[in-house]
Amino acid sequence: MEPAPEPDRKLFRDELVAAGLLVLTGTDGIYGRSAVYEDIAAAVDGLAVHTAASEGTVSYRFPPVMPRAVLEETGYLSSFPDMIGAVSTFKGDNRDHMKLLDLVESGGEWTTMLEPATVTLCPAVCHPLYPTLAGTMPDGGGRFDVYGWCFRHEPSVDPARMQAFRQHDLVYVGDAASAREFRNRWLQLGLEVLGSLGLAVEPVVANDPFFGRAGRILANNQVEETLKYEIVCPIHSPEYPTAIASANCHLDHFGQPFGIETVSGEVAHSCCFGFGVDRITLALLRTHGFAPANWPAATRQCLWP
Amino acid sequence: MEPAPEPDRKLFRDELVAAGLLVLTGTDGIYGRSAVYEDIAAAVDGLAVHTAASEGTVSYRFPPVMPRAVLEETGYLSSFPDMIGAVSTFKGDNRDHMKLLDLVESGGEWTTMLEPATVTLCPAVCHPLYPTLAGTMPDGGGRFDVYGWCFRHEPSVDPARMQAFRQHDLVYVGDAASAREFRNRWLQLGLEVLGSLGLAVEPVVANDPFFGRAGRILANNQVEETLKYEIVCPIHSPEYPTAIASANCHLDHFGQPFGIETVSGEVAHSCCFGFGVDRITLALLRTHGFAPANWPAATRQCLWP
Repeated sequence: MEPAPEPDRKLFRDELVAAGLLVLTGTDGIYGRSAVYEDIAAAVDGLAVHTAASEGTVSYRFPPVMPRAVLEETGYLSSFPDMIGAVSTFKGDNRDHMKLLDLVESGGEWTTMLEPATVTLCPAVCHPLYPTLAGTMPDGGGRFDVYGWCFRHEPSVDPARMQAFRQHDLVYVGDAASAREFRNRWLQLGLEVLGSLGLAVEPVVANDPFFGRAGRILANNQVEETLKYEIVCPIHSPEYPTAIASANCHLDHFGQPFGIETVSGEVAHSCCFGFGVDRITLALLRTHGFAPANWPAATRQCLWP
Repeated sequence: MEPAPEPDRKLFRDELVAAGLLVLTGTDGIYGRSAVYEDIAAAVDGLAVHTAASEGTVSYRFPPVMPRAVLEETGYLSSFPDMIGAVSTFKGDNRDHMKLLDLVESGGEWTTMLEPATVTLCPAVCHPLYPTLAGTMPDGGGRFDVYGWCFRHEPSVDPARMQAFRQHDLVYVGDAASAREFRNRWLQLGLEVLGSLGLAVEPVVANDPFFGRAGRILANNQVEETLKYEIVCPIHSPEYPTAIASANCHLDHFGQPFGIETVSGEVAHSCCFGFGVDRITLALLRTHGFAPANWPAATRQCLWP
C-alpha cells in the first residue's frame, strides 16, 4: 500500500495571507502578524501564564539574542548546527565601509566585511535561563516561566514551520525524580488546557531532528528513554498532525555545563513544558476558523475569560 | 570652565540588577527582565496602543529578524553599518560539522564554518513594514502601529543602551505635508502622554550617530532640516537626559526604494513616532522608584487604567 500523500502545507499559508492574518515579507518563515492573529497569540500566552501561576513560578523574559557562549555550552552546535543563527557585525573604518558599500552596490557578498558579534539568536526560549541559575537551587527545586522569540534556520512554506516564532516555557530545575514528575504532570495539564480550547490533541513520543550520523544515536536514545513527548494537533491534516507543545526531560544536560546543583549537592536535572504559541494560534485558526468572534463559547471563555 | 562630569551609567544598572529587575547574562546590553519590569513595559506598550487607537491605525507585529534585502534597501548599511546584526548559519555536511565542533572544542573561531542566512536582525521596528506597502497608499495616507524587538550592536554598561530592546512605532505614510503634520502632532501628543506619567520630558532636535565621514553631512542635514526630534527625560542625571521617544520625518527615504506612492502618484513620504518601551520603563523606575505599587496614583492610573 502506498503511504498517504503529504498535504500541501503551502495551501494553509496562502489562506492565512489572503485573510490578512499573516503578511509575507519575501522570506519563507518570516511573517508579519495582524492584530487578529496577535490577539489570539496574546491570549494563548496569557493562558500559559495563568496555568503556571498556581505553581509559584518565577517569570523572566529574555531578548531574542543571547550570549554566544550559551550556544557553545548547551551542546546546540553539536545537535542542531543547521538551525542556528550566529550574528556578525561591522567593526571596520571608513575605508572598509567604502568596500562594504561597493559590495552592496554590485550585489556582492558584503557580509565578508563583517566580524562575529558576541551574541547569537536564541534557538529555544529557556536556554538563556540556565546560565543565570549557576549555583544551588532552593529546597524543592526552582520553577520558572520564560517567554520569547526563538530562531531556527529552516526556511519553509509551511506556516507551522516559521524561522522566527514564540515559545512559552515552564521550566523545573531540581532533583532527577522531581524533574520527571514535573514533566509528566505538565504533559497531562498541557493536554487538558489545550483540549479545553477544542483542539484535537494527542500525546506522542518525540524524536528531535538531531544533525548527522552522531545525531541518529541521540535521536534513538531520546525515543528509548522517552525523554520528550509532544502534544500534536491537526493543522494541515488529521493524518499528519503538528506538534503544538512539548514536554521534555533534559536530564543533567543543562545542570552539568552551567554548574547548577540541588540542595543536596547533586548536579541538577531540568525539564521544560513548552507551549508553541504561534503553532497553537495556527491550530486554533485551522480548527475554529478565521473569525475568533465565531469560535465556540467554551474556547473563547478559556482564551478571553 | 570644565564640562560637567558624565554620570556613571553603570551605577543605575547595578541598582536594577541588585533589585532583581534586570538579570545579567554575561553580555553587556543583553538582559533578562523580571515580572515587575515586564508589567511596566507591557503597560507602556498598552498606553502606546491606546493613544494610537483613535487614529484608525492598522497593527502589525514583525519578528526580530527580517529579510536581509530590507537592510540593503533602507540605506542602513550606509548610515549605521556598525549597528547591524547580520545572521549566518551552518550549511555543511558531516565532515564540516566535525571541523566546526573541533573549533568549538579548541576555542577557535567556529563561525568561519558558517554561511550567510537570508535574514538579519531588525534594527528599527518599522523597517520591515515598508516593503509590504509597495504600491499606492489610500487617499489620506496610511497609519500603522508596529511593535517589536530591535537589535543594535553597541555593547554598553548603560542600561538605557541595550543591544536588544523594544520599540513601539506609530507610522504615517502619505503625502509630504501630511507626514510632517503627523510627526509634529505626535511629538506634542507624545510629550503629553509621557508627561502624564510624571516624567520630566522635553523635546530636543536630534542628530543620529551616522557612521564615518559621509555621516557628518547626513547628521548636519538632519539637524538643519529638523527632521528628527527626540523626547528626553533624566535617567542618569538631569544634565544628561536620555531620549525615550522620537518623532522622525523620513521624507521619501522609504517610499522611494520600496515603490510606495500617494494616491496622486507621487513618491510617498513617511514619518514615525517611536516609543522607546525599555527606556520609558527605565525612566519610570528612575523617577518613581523600584516599587510600582508606591508610584503616584496619576501615573498608576495612566498605566493600569
